[in-house]
Amino acid sequence: MTTQGTIRVIQYGLGPIGSATARQIVEQDGLELVGGVDIDPAKVGEDLGEVIGLDHPLGIAVVDDLLTALAEKGADLALHTTNSYFDLFQSQLSEIFAAGLNIVSTAEELSFPWLAHPEQATKVDSMAKQAGKTVLGTGVNPGFLMDLLPLNLTALCRRVDRITVKRVINASTRRGPFQIKVGAGMTVADFTAAMDEGRMGHVGLPESVGMVFHTMGKTLSRYKASVEPVVADRLIKTDAVEVAVGRVRGLKQVARGYTDEGEFVTLTFIAALDEKDEGDTINIVGTPDLEVKLKGTNGDIATVAIAVNAIRRVNEAAPGLVTMRDLPVITNW
Amino acid sequence: MTTQGTIRVIQYGLGPIGSATARQIVEQDGLELVGGVDIDPAKVGEDLGEVIGLDHPLGIAVVDDLLTALAEKGADLALHTTNSYFDLFQSQLSEIFAAGLNIVSTAEELSFPWLAHPEQATKVDSMAKQAGKTVLGTGVNPGFLMDLLPLNLTALCRRVDRITVKRVINASTRRGPFQIKVGAGMTVADFTAAMDEGRMGHVGLPESVGMVFHTMGKTLSRYKASVEPVVADRLIKTDAVEVAVGRVRGLKQVARGYTDEGEFVTLTFIAALDEKDEGDTINIVGTPDLEVKLKGTNGDIATVAIAVNAIRRVNEAAPGLVTMRDLPVITNW
Repeated sequence: MTTQGTIRVIQYGLGPIGSATARQIVEQDGLELVGGVDIDPAKVGEDLGEVIGLDHPLGIAVVDDLLTALAEKGADLALHTTNSYFDLFQSQLSEIFAAGLNIVSTAEELSFPWLAHPEQATKVDSMAKQAGKTVLGTGVNPGFLMDLLPLNLTALCRRVDRITVKRVINASTRRGPFQIKVGAGMTVADFTAAMDEGRMGHVGLPESVGMVFHTMGKTLSRYKASVEPVVADRLIKTDAVEVAVGRVRGLKQVARGYTDEGEFVTLTFIAALDEKDEGDTINIVGTPDLEVKLKGTNGDIATVAIAVNAIRRVNEAAPGLVTMRDLPVITNW
Repeated sequence: MTTQGTIRVIQYGLGPIGSATARQIVEQDGLELVGGVDIDPAKVGEDLGEVIGLDHPLGIAVVDDLLTALAEKGADLALHTTNSYFDLFQSQLSEIFAAGLNIVSTAEELSFPWLAHPEQATKVDSMAKQAGKTVLGTGVNPGFLMDLLPLNLTALCRRVDRITVKRVINASTRRGPFQIKVGAGMTVADFTAAMDEGRMGHVGLPESVGMVFHTMGKTLSRYKASVEPVVADRLIKTDAVEVAVGRVRGLKQVARGYTDEGEFVTLTFIAALDEKDEGDTINIVGTPDLEVKLKGTNGDIATVAIAVNAIRRVNEAAPGLVTMRDLPVITNW
């Protein structure tokens, strides 16, 4: 453990994911956690180690202001874990660039914004280049399982006709807030109403479809998405929720990307209590046909890991908005 | 299909793999096959299209000399598919750099030479930089299944304690020369003698171990490799070979890489006639544990595909010797 070459990181956002990335930064050789920023008054002023759930204090107070966090030691990079949407995070990125830091973010819409949010993408890219800094949006999904990994597997193919990815999560093994987020316990009517308002469902499928199409040089001529409830046929109880027969135990979400020749990418995301066969399956129809099955890609651990593991590559990258398909392989290190 | 931005490729080596890469170059938008080089007198002077097995001539004669191949149209890159070993290919790389071309090669020892052949690696890197050109060694294995892909999967892990990869090939479904290469039909005594002379076995395991260790910042304190025959317990006949009971139907090869703390990487390669459960399995022991199973990664198709698919990235890369872990994601395109 040498301090030479150590990358100093500010944790920007101290919710469950941000606390977990901060803990991993603390245990990772080559990284130093130098500050924590959050707007929650219950956290501001408290010791960062205690806020993120370490069993010892770090001697650093949580602050609600980035410049204060930087005042003592400076920093190289901010790990940004506040929210998913451009509307909400764009001014935060601007603030971080102004402070002269690179950014790794878990914001889903940032993972590949060039197709779904081209204007905002161009703006963030310009901001980054003007500041001479690099920003990456990443996570297990979007960022890896439904975009980078299937793209990488197509390297083995002489021809690719169709890509399908199916991710199945047994929400019973996940945090209570996740169970609530996927609709567990709702009536079908409430679920449908929330869905119609665009409030239900996993964020990131358009970004994954966009990364696959754009990287493979295909034109996305049509995009179709659907969300439907998965209904319980027996009583389910967890620590967080009780689901009666006929109520919602989770959701099934499908995104389809089409070229002029037909459906090219199909992404299916199922997250429900009591769901069997948890795992990820990637099928590539082409020459040859490939089938890849993954077990163990726990969403929270994997998103936290990939964000922290990406820090080194982002720190080495050229300025601008980069995505997972632009960087050399990211590994645990 | 536009010729603007088209990459002009010389196929250097016209054996079975080189003929297959050449055919894929012909069918790939954005690439143009501008020449073919081979020293085989039976091929020199023949039409390149006929030599590589197209159903139409290309109007280009195979030549035994790179400069002659370049004379008419020039070229941007050579796809090099002659042999596996530095001793044999190093002067060829030198010749190609002198002609001013980038190189994608299927030479196994080139895939990650920094640990197994550091002096030659440094020399090739210098040659490439002096020429202002880029060279990559790639293939399905080494180059992807036992190095790049497991490395990439570790991005999902907070902690990695151990990596194992097992590749099982049913040689009955492969070319006759491949069946012979893995020892099918030999007596156990002949196999053992050939093994002792270092003539049996898959080339590339030290390179894969090297890439994993080096990329993850681990020191390889010990490397152990073994090859053993897989013996037939019933009569096996293929178009190429007949294997009596008690004779060899293939081989099992294991490579183990150790840190000071113990075994960290274990690679198992099994290729035998009548072998069940063809496929690749990657296990990462850590936080979390990951298991990934692949089906359909046919060695010849996949090596050919990945070499051709890599051309675009190599053409964009900075000069020098690069390996798969240095480049942005390679995809079918």
